[in-house]
Amino acid sequence: MPAKASAESVTLDCWFDFASNYSYLSVLRIEAAAAQRGVRVAWRPFTLGPVFRSLGWTSSPFELQAAKGRYVWQHDMARQCIKHGLPVVRQRPGVFPRAGLLPLRVALFGADRQADWTGEFCRRVMRRNFVEDRDIEGPEAVAEVLTSMGLPAQPLIEAATAGAQQHRLREQTAQAAAQGIFGAPTFFVGEAMFWGDDRLDDAIALARASMRRPDVGTL
Amino acid sequence: MPAKASAESVTLDCWFDFASNYSYLSVLRIEAAAAQRGVRVAWRPFTLGPVFRSLGWTSSPFELQAAKGRYVWQHDMARQCIKHGLPVVRQRPGVFPRAGLLPLRVALFGADRQADWTGEFCRRVMRRNFVEDRDIEGPEAVAEVLTSMGLPAQPLIEAATAGAQQHRLREQTAQAAAQGIFGAPTFFVGEAMFWGDDRLDDAIALARASMRRPDVGTL
Repeated sequence: MPAKASAESVTLDCWFDFASNYSYLSVLRIEAAAAQRGVRVAWRPFTLGPVFRSLGWTSSPFELQAAKGRYVWQHDMARQCIKHGLPVVRQRPGVFPRAGLLPLRVALFGADRQADWTGEFCRRVMRRNFVEDRDIEGPEAVAEVLTSMGLPAQPLIEAATAGAQQHRLREQTAQAAAQGIFGAPTFFVGEAMFWGDDRLDDAIALARASMRRPDVGTL
Repeated sequence: MPAKASAESVTLDCWFDFASNYSYLSVLRIEAAAAQRGVRVAWRPFTLGPVFRSLGWTSSPFELQAAKGRYVWQHDMARQCIKHGLPVVRQRPGVFPRAGLLPLRVALFGADRQADWTGEFCRRVMRRNFVEDRDIEGPEAVAEVLTSMGLPAQPLIEAATAGAQQHRLREQTAQAAAQGIFGAPTFFVGEAMFWGDDRLDDAIALARASMRRPDVGTL
């Protein structure tokens, strides 16, 4: 859908997976950067695995293509972190890509309700994966993150995985594919699609412009 | 090699292929952007085909992955051109990726001699491919570009394809692989590698910094 006319309705959709290292950059900086321009972020956690499999890949391209992997971990990631003033990812995590379905489910539960803890939860899971190089999957890891934020871990984990919520992550990932998403992070402002952390600033600028000129959102 | 100590020796290596659409962006803007920071560009034309084949790809990823191709041609390319004030590439060229071995050979001949026409020749070939959507391969196309610049077309084409020069493009492409290049454009400042037009400004900034602090070139 194109961006709507009223300022309140212009949001920046941030599609990401906790396993994705370039999503780390965006998840850590997007809310602060968007807020500076008066833009609201809508978190859109999804799983990148099915997308990669649909491209015939069995893992991340940074694992499958040795030269690209070397570039990312030896050159690019640390430089990008420094450029954006983020905690520096100095090497490939011990497990990469690291599975994180339960934290995605909890993030999606929060995002669906526009819960104000969603962004901070996402940032903490990302730092745990890429900076602390620690497991993010399973109830213990997720409970630790939630508890560190003063949130009721068990009730949240249960609510995020029970009943109708069981299928939400699969639905969300199908929605990503339907919107033409082929990697993460990906941003949408109305129908305008932006792939990669390198396009985050452009996406925020368009979201800002759409608040004044709603037709711009269809560019 | 790390960047050298003297200001004169700090160059920004620009590895590119005329067939590559993101190389279009960099080739058109690099000399002006680098000159503003006092940085000299060294043109490094090479062929991306062998690189893609070594990754198991038969063509550009933008051809092989439909969703990624749609994104590039419907969203990203035009936006990037507008952002950088370049002639706008509004759609996928009629032939993509478009072969251009002879213009690569001529560009390499010029680059090897630091000929001052090299940059303008590269820009004209790129515009012909992506803006005018015209053939760039073969002596007629290349002669037309050279003649439009007031250069002696036939002698240059002959010199660029005769004798020892016959193997230069293959050597250059082997050198690209040896340096870990897996896509285009790619920039080097000493041993520091930058992949993609999105990293051009970072590469220029490092080249500039290396002129004052030569050790930075090894970051």
